[in-house]
Amino acid sequence: METHLSSKTKQIIISPDHPFVIIGERINPTRRKSLMESLAKSDFSIALEDARKQIAAGAHVLDVNAGVPGADEPKLLEGLARALAQTVDAPLCFDSANPAALTAALAAYEGKALINSTTGEEKMLNAVLPLAAKYRAAVIGVVTDDSGVPATPDARLAVARKIVQRAADHGMPREDIVIDCLALTVSADSLAGRVTLNTMRLVQQELGVNLSLGASNVSFGLPDRVAINAAYLALGIARGMCAAITDPTVPELATTIRACDLLMGRDEYAMRWIKAFRARKK
Amino acid sequence: METHLSSKTKQIIISPDHPFVIIGERINPTRRKSLMESLAKSDFSIALEDARKQIAAGAHVLDVNAGVPGADEPKLLEGLARALAQTVDAPLCFDSANPAALTAALAAYEGKALINSTTGEEKMLNAVLPLAAKYRAAVIGVVTDDSGVPATPDARLAVARKIVQRAADHGMPREDIVIDCLALTVSADSLAGRVTLNTMRLVQQELGVNLSLGASNVSFGLPDRVAINAAYLALGIARGMCAAITDPTVPELATTIRACDLLMGRDEYAMRWIKAFRARKK
Repeated sequence: METHLSSKTKQIIISPDHPFVIIGERINPTRRKSLMESLAKSDFSIALEDARKQIAAGAHVLDVNAGVPGADEPKLLEGLARALAQTVDAPLCFDSANPAALTAALAAYEGKALINSTTGEEKMLNAVLPLAAKYRAAVIGVVTDDSGVPATPDARLAVARKIVQRAADHGMPREDIVIDCLALTVSADSLAGRVTLNTMRLVQQELGVNLSLGASNVSFGLPDRVAINAAYLALGIARGMCAAITDPTVPELATTIRACDLLMGRDEYAMRWIKAFRARKK
Repeated sequence: METHLSSKTKQIIISPDHPFVIIGERINPTRRKSLMESLAKSDFSIALEDARKQIAAGAHVLDVNAGVPGADEPKLLEGLARALAQTVDAPLCFDSANPAALTAALAAYEGKALINSTTGEEKMLNAVLPLAAKYRAAVIGVVTDDSGVPATPDARLAVARKIVQRAADHGMPREDIVIDCLALTVSADSLAGRVTLNTMRLVQQELGVNLSLGASNVSFGLPDRVAINAAYLALGIARGMCAAITDPTVPELATTIRACDLLMGRDEYAMRWIKAFRARKK
């Protein structure tokens, strides 16, 4: 199954048969004070620099979050989307829980965007899916619902199935739903990583949809987070995950993803591996 | 399924429900000139130092190879086994294709050893399995046979099945066979890693046996081998591999394995992760 995303000039395919898709997470003002302050002034310079750096480091898609407290999010997200589209050719992933902000950005965007995200909650499904259908965007579906975070892989599969079915009710093709099996932190629950990994296998087997992951929270509260996050990306890739929202400017993460592409048979003659190695040595 | 190994004083369990088992690969004179020269003089000092260092770095079992050209391998392997058993408490893995050497080492060993390895070749099965049965050792079964290396996961599964069945004919319990799905180098064949990973899933599903891997060859001929090997360990662990013959004195490999244990739910309260992190910072 192939999930197609595009900017005006570039197409990206999320699929187990294609190189892993890195969705750069850095354009997000949460916990980034300088970005927050610049966005509050409608100054996009830091965001655009983040965009360039992430693409240089290997990002294929850019997550765009304009959640600045007190700001006009629809206006800000739309402005940011326009500025990014003029600066880089990577497709965008609009990261907002605000339907008005998503509407503004999607309406302005010349391409096929990804929406981050809906859950299985009724309110979210009813807000996000009509927008995705109208603007022909793809959607990340996170496996939580009105009861919270399901504890077991089977219960998470049920939420994923609900999201896929509800999307179908809106006329969305199944390939436009990318399921996020939800990585909670292992410092709070030793089994959190395992439940997510087992959910991935189950969702891929049962629904055949593509899998993405917000992969950075799993290590929250622990030392040497980068090593944990890198290992988690590899474990997820072996379970069928073919995209992640992560930070490609952390070299260990980008290198792990490239190594996994090589080892999963998605880098013929190791050409990308060798090219990236040479670039690192410069 | 649990594969039990033991020295006189220590038991190690290979199982998906237990921490990953690192079989330290360094006591092997191939391509290590100083070790080769010392072993040729029946000087075990370098080997014993290798043993201590590997255990300090996290090895649970030690692979022992005494393949010194021109030397009396049975005498050397037995002597090395005795010296190691007096020095460290980790169970040993006897690494030889010489039945006389295996016999000498197994007869002298006070514990339950691992044999590295048999294949599906008739000559190997007939030589190794009777020894394993007689001395109640566990055996690594590598999925090649008299026709060579099977190209597909299904064909490799067939070899694994043959090894398991032939072991049963010798009265060996199934848990004493640990299958190595064979990692060939991805620089020679882009699909080599993927075939091995898909074989792992198939062998685990169909036979339920434990999986190990000689994990260092996959990166042969490529730059930044450590990053490839680390990613491959994680990919394999996600596919059910629960032991590997590798070099724990390479920090990235030991760290990746610990991160995977944490993420697979085999490190309660992240205690081993935090302990290892603190030890590294000293």
